Amino acid sequence: MPESESVVVLGIDPGTAVTGYGIVRKDGRNPLTLVECGVIRTKPRDTLPQRLQEIHEGVSELIRRHKPRVLSIEDIFYARNVRTTVVLGHARGVILLAAAHAGMEIHEYPPSEIKKAVAGTGAATKLQVQFMVMRLLRLKSAPQPTDAADGVAAALAWALAPDLPKIEPMRRDYIIPTG
Amino acid sequence: MPESESVVVLGIDPGTAVTGYGIVRKDGRNPLTLVECGVIRTKPRDTLPQRLQEIHEGVSELIRRHKPRVLSIEDIFYARNVRTTVVLGHARGVILLAAAHAGMEIHEYPPSEIKKAVAGTGAATKLQVQFMVMRLLRLKSAPQPTDAADGVAAALAWALAPDLPKIEPMRRDYIIPTG
Repeated sequence: MPESESVVVLGIDPGTAVTGYGIVRKDGRNPLTLVECGVIRTKPRDTLPQRLQEIHEGVSELIRRHKPRVLSIEDIFYARNVRTTVVLGHARGVILLAAAHAGMEIHEYPPSEIKKAVAGTGAATKLQVQFMVMRLLRLKSAPQPTDAADGVAAALAWALAPDLPKIEPMRRDYIIPTG
Repeated sequence: MPESESVVVLGIDPGTAVTGYGIVRKDGRNPLTLVECGVIRTKPRDTLPQRLQEIHEGVSELIRRHKPRVLSIEDIFYARNVRTTVVLGHARGVILLAAAHAGMEIHEYPPSEIKKAVAGTGAATKLQVQFMVMRLLRLKSAPQPTDAADGVAAALAWALAPDLPKIEPMRRDYIIPTG
């Protein structure tokens, strides 16, 4: 990425009841900055289709407002019960739809990779993740509720991924003749 | 339902590769009629977000064209592997979103209930379902491919559900005095 380029990334921790999000700006070699974070909360009495509509509208509204180029979203954690995971799949579906509709670049990371990118280990606790989110973005307190911090962590996982150095094609005069 | 009321129902058998659909009209006590059926097929090379966009657009287009009042959709079959079921959850999510956006009434039926409604038994084979779809709608041949027939079967499951007789509130003079 060229030093002058500024990229806005939307990080999302999906859920049918609470979807956490964090918007982070990556601006060349400057420190990362938190633009906004929060949660999209659906009503417990609403049906699944109504909740999906609220999640889709919430995410679409964030995209309209901040025009992020990248979506960094938590992948589904398969160890929970099947029913929960399948319902979560519905929520992820409408979030991916909103991002695809806006032509965004989409990256998915399993929870352990997000923890590792932010806190150095895939086994980091919620508290460790919150602490590192706070430090990395120079915040005075950790984002609340924890789902918002998880959304920010997802954004950081993409923003902290190393820019791989470009490998130049090998030039013949670099080859040291043997013998 | 009053005899004069005509209701259009959209039946869907969801899938990320192929989503089958059938549109059936229920018109008072007249025989049910098939309005349209077919499949929404996504490209194998497309990413999941692109496929979700194609499915959402396909279903939204059907809704715009036929203005169905009811969505009758196959519920997820949990016996297949978790990964397949979770990905299918994404497809169902964007279909439910399209229906919720149009303010439709949404009904979900497990595959066995759809088979039972159409062919009399939850253990009916694909062929039996196709045959009954053909007979019930007086078609010259079964809808092709089978996913389209499954979409039509989902629509029929709702359309064939018995209209429960209205239970009038009990009037005092109907009560037979004892003794």
